[in-house]
Amino acid sequence: MTRLFADRMGCVHRSFVREILKVTEDPEIISFAGGLPNPRYFPVQEVAQAAQKVLSECGEAALQYSTTEGYLPLREMIVERYARKGVKVSASEILITNGSQQGLDLLSKIFLNKGDAVILERPTYLAAIQSFGFFEPKFHSIPLQEDGVDLQALEKVLLEDDDARLFYSVPNFQNPTGITYSLDKLKAVAEKMSGGSTVFIEDNPYGDLRFMGEDRPSMRNFMGENAVLLGSFSKIVAPGMRLGWVCACEEIMEKLIVAKQALDLHSNYLCQRIVHQYLKDNDIELHIAKIRKAYKEQRDFMVAAMEETFPESVSFTRPEGGMFLWVTLPEGTSSLDLFNLAIKEKVAFVPGQAFFADGGGSNTMRLNFSNSDNDRILEGITRLAKVIKG
Amino acid sequence: MTRLFADRMGCVHRSFVREILKVTEDPEIISFAGGLPNPRYFPVQEVAQAAQKVLSECGEAALQYSTTEGYLPLREMIVERYARKGVKVSASEILITNGSQQGLDLLSKIFLNKGDAVILERPTYLAAIQSFGFFEPKFHSIPLQEDGVDLQALEKVLLEDDDARLFYSVPNFQNPTGITYSLDKLKAVAEKMSGGSTVFIEDNPYGDLRFMGEDRPSMRNFMGENAVLLGSFSKIVAPGMRLGWVCACEEIMEKLIVAKQALDLHSNYLCQRIVHQYLKDNDIELHIAKIRKAYKEQRDFMVAAMEETFPESVSFTRPEGGMFLWVTLPEGTSSLDLFNLAIKEKVAFVPGQAFFADGGGSNTMRLNFSNSDNDRILEGITRLAKVIKG
Repeated sequence: MTRLFADRMGCVHRSFVREILKVTEDPEIISFAGGLPNPRYFPVQEVAQAAQKVLSECGEAALQYSTTEGYLPLREMIVERYARKGVKVSASEILITNGSQQGLDLLSKIFLNKGDAVILERPTYLAAIQSFGFFEPKFHSIPLQEDGVDLQALEKVLLEDDDARLFYSVPNFQNPTGITYSLDKLKAVAEKMSGGSTVFIEDNPYGDLRFMGEDRPSMRNFMGENAVLLGSFSKIVAPGMRLGWVCACEEIMEKLIVAKQALDLHSNYLCQRIVHQYLKDNDIELHIAKIRKAYKEQRDFMVAAMEETFPESVSFTRPEGGMFLWVTLPEGTSSLDLFNLAIKEKVAFVPGQAFFADGGGSNTMRLNFSNSDNDRILEGITRLAKVIKG
Repeated sequence: MTRLFADRMGCVHRSFVREILKVTEDPEIISFAGGLPNPRYFPVQEVAQAAQKVLSECGEAALQYSTTEGYLPLREMIVERYARKGVKVSASEILITNGSQQGLDLLSKIFLNKGDAVILERPTYLAAIQSFGFFEPKFHSIPLQEDGVDLQALEKVLLEDDDARLFYSVPNFQNPTGITYSLDKLKAVAEKMSGGSTVFIEDNPYGDLRFMGEDRPSMRNFMGENAVLLGSFSKIVAPGMRLGWVCACEEIMEKLIVAKQALDLHSNYLCQRIVHQYLKDNDIELHIAKIRKAYKEQRDFMVAAMEETFPESVSFTRPEGGMFLWVTLPEGTSSLDLFNLAIKEKVAFVPGQAFFADGGGSNTMRLNFSNSDNDRILEGITRLAKVIKG
């Protein structure tokens, strides 16, 4: 008997990056491939104290079923942090999700019919391509420039496909490129999209990890209710608890709640209570400052090592924050071939082509600097330079 | 501007039960409406100890990203429990999900094209109707008899629609009816389905909560790889951690992992580690025996109160386990009208019609006995009898 799967399964495959990460499990390999935060900066003690407090003070409640929307005091804390950053939203506009990744599934579910258009940055976050892919959309990939998407290309797509449902963007320290939109570019994108029905998804997992330069405003301030924001505790507290959120206007939120309820009733309530307690008893801004300082050092160290050891024909981004650098090799070089050579030298990265929904990018690669300490960075970059030089 | 949502949003609505639960939040109302376990039997102290151990011994690892499949030692424990119940599966056939509810979304995603047939019991678990509903299937509802589905009706559907993709069943102490399949009925269903491509989903959240009678074998033993099992820690440990699992053969599992990865990368890892530690340090079977004893008393108490106070024209199930009773009122009585009267008397239940995918059931209601202590049960049933008698 041949088992019958849904047609959509023809379009989606096991993540290439996931397979790569398996190769890099060998502890001798210095891996710049993953997208992991540095566990050294997880607030383990503080989370343990919060867990103890929650379980001793209100254990029965914290272990019971709860509301689909998420724990209200936690949602209120998220609203307060938005307010401090100049974004005015209410707690009824926040839905706690199982990591912000889940927000992509929920938004796809409520917005996408098969064949509907989704606008992506080129390159873009691989798992977003996968998440949207389950809903069989048509992708439009808009090339990224140093300060955000190419406006002419965006304009062309908006003219051709005026009913694109979603535009997915990571405006700050993008995954994979590390690029941040300029203020002018944000305004120009909002201007081009105004009057249309395309929803702008601002995925902002790294926004708090700015090492240098000035914070940019949220697109919510330019696009109002046509901007949906995704946020996450993964990079500022810890990813293992899988807690993120969607911030959307009430009309969209009403649909998201219906979808979330059918999907998994609600997100892990015990961890919602733990993170709430942690945020109540600790200064998260102080903690984030510590992470920022550490990542800046790691980023500076990696940039310096690359400047010293990489050939001039290789260019790379110098991100103002986040966790990733993006490397462009000379035209015609295959980063996939290079990957196989690099593994022999015990160093790993992600070949860039996985991040292109429409193919291409074979001469690019993504390097993660958040999950390696300085000595590993220096050694790894030295090995990588050797491989690149051939 | 009118916002454009996906067509599927026309078919799905906020859960009726969810709205009902809001009405019943008034603490003066004795509610038999929810489907909550009794928090008195949550192992709060033991979970707190497990959390402390995990965070002090391997905090950094427990707070980091992890594998999509879930924590291997936890999956191995699930496999061992299955083995003790006579179900032979391997850890590679277990995927940890965000509650077993999420398993329904993942299975829908990998199996259902729009318009594909899904076979349901009539009545069935409301949130399953909602979860499948997002994938726009065609439903076939097979009436439930005292010992499981009506075989003739099943045969008719299988003949008419020989490519039904999924058959969703809760064989033990079903939600909402409390009905359990007989051994003969299980075998007969497997026999009728043999040779077909329909996947049987055995959702078994209450299987461990048997008060009387004998355990039934899993359909996996009769249908092999055409049976997919859903399990949950919600009723035997606690629901707030949202940990369940799917057990499926490797061909199906491969697809489920791709879907889970796109959906939320992996389930809450900290809580996977906590539940694993809890299971390692405590005797779960002893704990379950305690819950079983308590729920049996509550069930007996409710049944006795109903036998004493309800008119003879009202019939109800006497489940051998689980959390629910199912009441059938005289033909022509509206349980929805009764609900409004009951609320005035400060007692609540779920009107049964919500559990029928194809309409009907207006003279039925679901009563939960797990979440009320004996004095509340007696008082609530007395109030309800008064309302029924009019």
